[in-house]
Formats: sequence, structure tokens, C-alpha cells
Amino acid sequence: MREFVLLSRQGTTNPRFDASDLGRVGLDTVARCVSAAFCVSGHVRDDVVFHVFLGGPPSPPVHLRIDGSKLRSLDPSERGIGLLLSKALGSLRGGPQVQGVSATREGLERFVRGSCKGRRMYVLEEDGEDVDEADLLGAVFVLGDKVGLPRKEELFLERFGASKLSLGPNRYFSSHCLVILNYVLDRKARATGAFGNE
Amino acid sequence: MREFVLLSRQGTTNPRFDASDLGRVGLDTVARCVSAAFCVSGHVRDDVVFHVFLGGPPSPPVHLRIDGSKLRSLDPSERGIGLLLSKALGSLRGGPQVQGVSATREGLERFVRGSCKGRRMYVLEEDGEDVDEADLLGAVFVLGDKVGLPRKEELFLERFGASKLSLGPNRYFSSHCLVILNYVLDRKARATGAFGNE
Repeated sequence: MREFVLLSRQGTTNPRFDASDLGRVGLDTVARCVSAAFCVSGHVRDDVVFHVFLGGPPSPPVHLRIDGSKLRSLDPSERGIGLLLSKALGSLRGGPQVQGVSATREGLERFVRGSCKGRRMYVLEEDGEDVDEADLLGAVFVLGDKVGLPRKEELFLERFGASKLSLGPNRYFSSHCLVILNYVLDRKARATGAFGNE
Repeated sequence: MREFVLLSRQGTTNPRFDASDLGRVGLDTVARCVSAAFCVSGHVRDDVVFHVFLGGPPSPPVHLRIDGSKLRSLDPSERGIGLLLSKALGSLRGGPQVQGVSATREGLERFVRGSCKGRRMYVLEEDGEDVDEADLLGAVFVLGDKVGLPRKEELFLERFGASKLSLGPNRYFSSHCLVILNYVLDRKARATGAFGNE
């Protein structure tokens, strides 16, 4: 399984927003990351779990966990993903559940303490270990919505044992990092026979 | 210089459309490809030229050529890129020119015959030569907006000497292919000292 974590400092926690204008509510990067994490032509990656921690108003934090193996389908457009996020946020206020998406009121730290103990964790940073050299098997990959993570979360993850992982000196967009990580993991899977749907 | 070519069969050639709903006019993939071709955090790639051939109504074909070294700036949102495409199409109808973008009424074949003679050309296909083995220096990369190219264009490019290039057996989205190509070219550039802004 591949597990990606996005920390979205500004992403709204209000389910009511215009899905055609996600930039206004800080969800544009989130939507592009969801597409990058799950979408290949013709199907949804069922070996990916994507977490986003939303830190925007009115009631942060919110943790959305999207499980590719349980999604019925995924419209890859920004608008389509915006609607999915809106419904998932609505489920915290008594709205219907969205299949494949769980919403809880927990922050990154609680999630990491509860679910990542003993697991290999990587934070994407330009000055980390090169992705081609690193052991990626079973790892959790953590990204910020802009370059790097806030200092507080970075220090927490460091203390928790996370390592820095680098895709090179370029500062890629978070969604592009996920495309690249999926590509690198696809290649490693073919080379070693591992990393598939294990 | 890196040169990418996208064949968009459905992309509208009418400059008047709602930039918040690009899927409706076949430009959603185009916009995501523009972002993938040019955008890294903090700046626009000035070593990239991106061509799109629009085949949608009312007056195809249209060739938009976007030159990263001449763009003033680039809003990476789908809506922002939609507005750029709209202005560029408008310039064909007497509207103002867009700095860094030229619009002409030519199709893929005329462009290839006129501008690609003697150059290495690659068409992205799952069963092509592996990208890690191929010589990418100075190449032109051609992608369709959905999986593969229409048969007619594929045969034309084959006769013209284009080779098939593979990113692996996965059918990545066109925009994801561009992210991956940029990443692979970035790595090759660092490894060999070539491929930069030459």
C-alpha cells in the first residue's frame, strides 16, 4: 500500500464552498494532490491511501482519509474532487458518509502518534536523501501544501523519527511530487516485484 | 530546450468560454498540461516550449505555441490557464497578442514538416523504448490528450521518423506524463550536466 499525507494549512473545514473556485478556500492544491495520488487513465489506484489535514476555518483540524480501494469512482477534475471534499466535510455535520472517505476531527500529530509508530516516514524536502537511494517499502510520505512543512510540524516529525526525502533540488508543486512518487514507486515495483498491492 | 507537443482533439478553437469549466470545452487536459510543463514553485520553467494543437469547433486546427522564456508570469490554476488560452485564441480574431504565446491556424502535420525535420521525435506510448534507456537530448515529445494518438497522426509521425517512448506500462494522464518527463529530464540534466537551458 502507498500512503501519502498532505498538510493543508489553509484548506477550509467548511463544507459549503464553490467547487468551481477551490483556490478561494485553499483546496486547489488538495484537489490536484488527490488527482495525482489516485488517477491513472481508466481506473483509480486501489493501492493508495491519501490523508489530508485541513487547517483552515471555521473548525480545524479535520482529517480526511481517502482509501482508493474503497472509492466507487473518482472524477479527476478539480471541480469533481471539490464536490467529493465538500461531501466528506459535510459528513462531519451529520451529512451522509462518502464511500471510501472518512472524516475525523484530528490533527497531524495525533494521527502520527496513533497510526505511524514503527513505520518508516519521509518528509519531502529538497535537501533530503535522494529518492533513488532510499528504501521506500511501506513508507508514509508527508508533504506540505506549499514548499516544505511549517517548522512546528517539521520538528515534531523529526523527533518522531521521520527522515527527509529529496526528489532533487527543484521545488516541485506538491501535486507534482505525488505524480513523481507514484512514478518512482511504479518503477521500483516493476524492478523488484514488490510495492504493488501488498 | 525542452519541447512538448499536445494534440487536443476536442479542445475548443472559440475564444469565448467559461474558464471555470474547462472540461465543457475540452481544455481541462490542456490546462493541466500547461501547468505540468511550466510550473515549479516560485518560477516558470524558462527552458520549455509547449505546443498544443486544438481540433475542436468552430475553426480547427489552431496551434498555440507557449514559450516559457517569454511568459511574463503564469497563474497555475486551471481557471488562470483557461484565461490565458482564451486570450491567445482571441488574438487570432484581432484581439491583443499575449506575450509568450503565438497562435496560428496550422495543424500538427504542417508544424512537424516545417519545424521538426532532422530532430529526434518521441511519441509517448506504453510499448515504446524505456525512457531511462532513450537518448532524450534535444528531443520533441508528442502526446495525445487521451491515451495515445489518433491512428492517422500516429502513422504520419511514424513515417516522419518519430520513435515510441515509454514511461512504463501504466497509462498515465497526459499532464502526469509531462510532470514525469520534466522530472526525468531534470535528473538527466544533473547527472550529465546537459539538458539545461542549452
